[in-house]
Amino acid sequence: MNDREKRRISIIGSGNWGSAIARIVGLNCRKLDYMVDEVKMWVFEEVLEDGRKLTDVINTEHENVKYLKGFKLPDNVVAEPDILKSTLNADYLVFVMPHQFLDRACAPLKGNLKPGAVGISLIKGFDLQPNGKVQLISELISQMLNIQVCCLMGANLAHEVASEKFCETTVGVYTDEQARIFKDIFETDTFRVSTVKDTHTVEVCGALKNIVACGAGFVDGLGYGDSTKAAVIRLGLIEMMRFAEHFYPGAKFTTFFESCGIADLVASCYGGRNRKVSEAVARTRKSMRELEKEMLDGQRLQGPATAAEVNVLLKERNLENDFPLFTTVHKICVAEVSPTEMLDCVLSHPDARWLKSKGFSLGVKTNGSAVRSDDA
Amino acid sequence: MNDREKRRISIIGSGNWGSAIARIVGLNCRKLDYMVDEVKMWVFEEVLEDGRKLTDVINTEHENVKYLKGFKLPDNVVAEPDILKSTLNADYLVFVMPHQFLDRACAPLKGNLKPGAVGISLIKGFDLQPNGKVQLISELISQMLNIQVCCLMGANLAHEVASEKFCETTVGVYTDEQARIFKDIFETDTFRVSTVKDTHTVEVCGALKNIVACGAGFVDGLGYGDSTKAAVIRLGLIEMMRFAEHFYPGAKFTTFFESCGIADLVASCYGGRNRKVSEAVARTRKSMRELEKEMLDGQRLQGPATAAEVNVLLKERNLENDFPLFTTVHKICVAEVSPTEMLDCVLSHPDARWLKSKGFSLGVKTNGSAVRSDDA
Repeated sequence: MNDREKRRISIIGSGNWGSAIARIVGLNCRKLDYMVDEVKMWVFEEVLEDGRKLTDVINTEHENVKYLKGFKLPDNVVAEPDILKSTLNADYLVFVMPHQFLDRACAPLKGNLKPGAVGISLIKGFDLQPNGKVQLISELISQMLNIQVCCLMGANLAHEVASEKFCETTVGVYTDEQARIFKDIFETDTFRVSTVKDTHTVEVCGALKNIVACGAGFVDGLGYGDSTKAAVIRLGLIEMMRFAEHFYPGAKFTTFFESCGIADLVASCYGGRNRKVSEAVARTRKSMRELEKEMLDGQRLQGPATAAEVNVLLKERNLENDFPLFTTVHKICVAEVSPTEMLDCVLSHPDARWLKSKGFSLGVKTNGSAVRSDDA
Repeated sequence: MNDREKRRISIIGSGNWGSAIARIVGLNCRKLDYMVDEVKMWVFEEVLEDGRKLTDVINTEHENVKYLKGFKLPDNVVAEPDILKSTLNADYLVFVMPHQFLDRACAPLKGNLKPGAVGISLIKGFDLQPNGKVQLISELISQMLNIQVCCLMGANLAHEVASEKFCETTVGVYTDEQARIFKDIFETDTFRVSTVKDTHTVEVCGALKNIVACGAGFVDGLGYGDSTKAAVIRLGLIEMMRFAEHFYPGAKFTTFFESCGIADLVASCYGGRNRKVSEAVARTRKSMRELEKEMLDGQRLQGPATAAEVNVLLKERNLENDFPLFTTVHKICVAEVSPTEMLDCVLSHPDARWLKSKGFSLGVKTNGSAVRSDDA
């Protein structure tokens, strides 16, 4: 195959997750005969303290010394500060940057992408438009650039992926071809990719788990034990399923058993900064914003933002009472109620009725056969 | 209602979990007009260091000073060292003692229970008979005493329940009446009971989660991160479901979302002694038995025992390869392979095919309608 027949992938973003994923994509593209070796990575240009440009450092030292220090990038990953140049002729576009920069950064791409290009979003959360419309990031990108957008979500911290500690991930796709190609491009011996044709559910999991992680942090900060926290995780997972069922009909139960589901949820409720800062909120009774400043150098957490976006949706449809855990986390984040409300929420949670309405039996075959519903 | 029309419950066992549950049952029976106030608790008689009998101390000080120090029992809970006397006229029998004492302790009850008496087992694990037969504890009790046996399992540590930290639990029952009565008897403001007519699955969860907790401990001891551990938990849960599907046909998917399922699994993989000792095995490379002696004063862990029992079943049916996580945990526990094998097991785990064969969609109604299976 000559280079003109081969396909190209570009990475739009170069933070720690972007850089970790660029290492993998770069190494895999070298091995795949249908992919061009070169992987352009769009880098928001910064001048480092020593006066050098970040793109120059990446392209000479092959390391993102600012956001993923200590890990070499393969030299076929090429940093490019011009977003249009970075995506020229790209068949696949990996979106991996903070949500708040997406709109402005991607504006130049409108109408300038290769026809048939496919996106894949690694960005977790929802987007809230000024007109009050709430949508997933993949929906936002898809609408903005008029391309199909898949997603990649799972229990995988950038640093653990870069260190080649074993991680799993889930890629949500629309076609079998996308499933095959994204598996080729992202999988390594220590980064296991599973693909499902249930894209929105994969992304819903990635967004909502951060709300639950805040809830887990609040009960940690209140001094409750492992059993209470396990209840929060369980009830949070059930609300995640209800949410997917309600807003993305056709969502599959089994997707919650992929890495993007329970695995990422559990990892976020034990590790991760949403849990950590929320614990501090409950312990110190300082505000979320104040603790973000103290503990994260002013960076914003994803959980409180997602809780607020989801709350807009729930309020609008009069569904707050059906999602008491999401609602309570939001109210605690904005200091409308005290963190102790988290416990009342768990105590009075109406999970049971919904769960019992789903009588899926493991014993039946799944192609067109009946499912049973005869729980107590 | 006079006392002769009322029903009686007895508690067979008085360790820390037995004592914690006796507090709840005692308080609830006082409030329920259809239950006799008095709750007999069978206590294996011991003479304390100060020369007093444990039953005397419990019946005068209303505290199990040996196994649940610091928590008062209601005075309608009466310690009784004679197992036959403790169960006289009992309609409900709560089995809560170490599995290894069950056979001998309960032998006197054979043929001496009130007709129609119902048991409920709080004992986690399987029973391996000398003839190689493996069964659940509820099945063992049921067969031995010829009664129906329900079970109670969930993310609830004795000490957290006694401290009235919020916990949930799942009661597996056979009839609506059992569901109603066990909810009355066991539920409190901080101990939430959910009932399901899927008894064996509830019990399977309670037993198998200890195997997964060992697996989580091994990867902790090997120094892997939260993402790897989340993968172990996820794959362990999938093997739990496969096991239930294979050995207890009709098992319900939804039961794994009850407290006995994911909640107890997660709590055990982060807290709990199976995880802790297994971590030490991987870290120090001492044997499981040696570390049980050092860390648990010689007490045996449940996880390695359950892994061995399950392995007998799997070997017999030539299913070891379908349950690689359970099999690997067993082999590590008996030092047949090194703890590092845990990672290879996760890396090569064939979860995906099974999961994809289950296409349950959340969007469809569950009474007799079709489910879809169109995953990538």
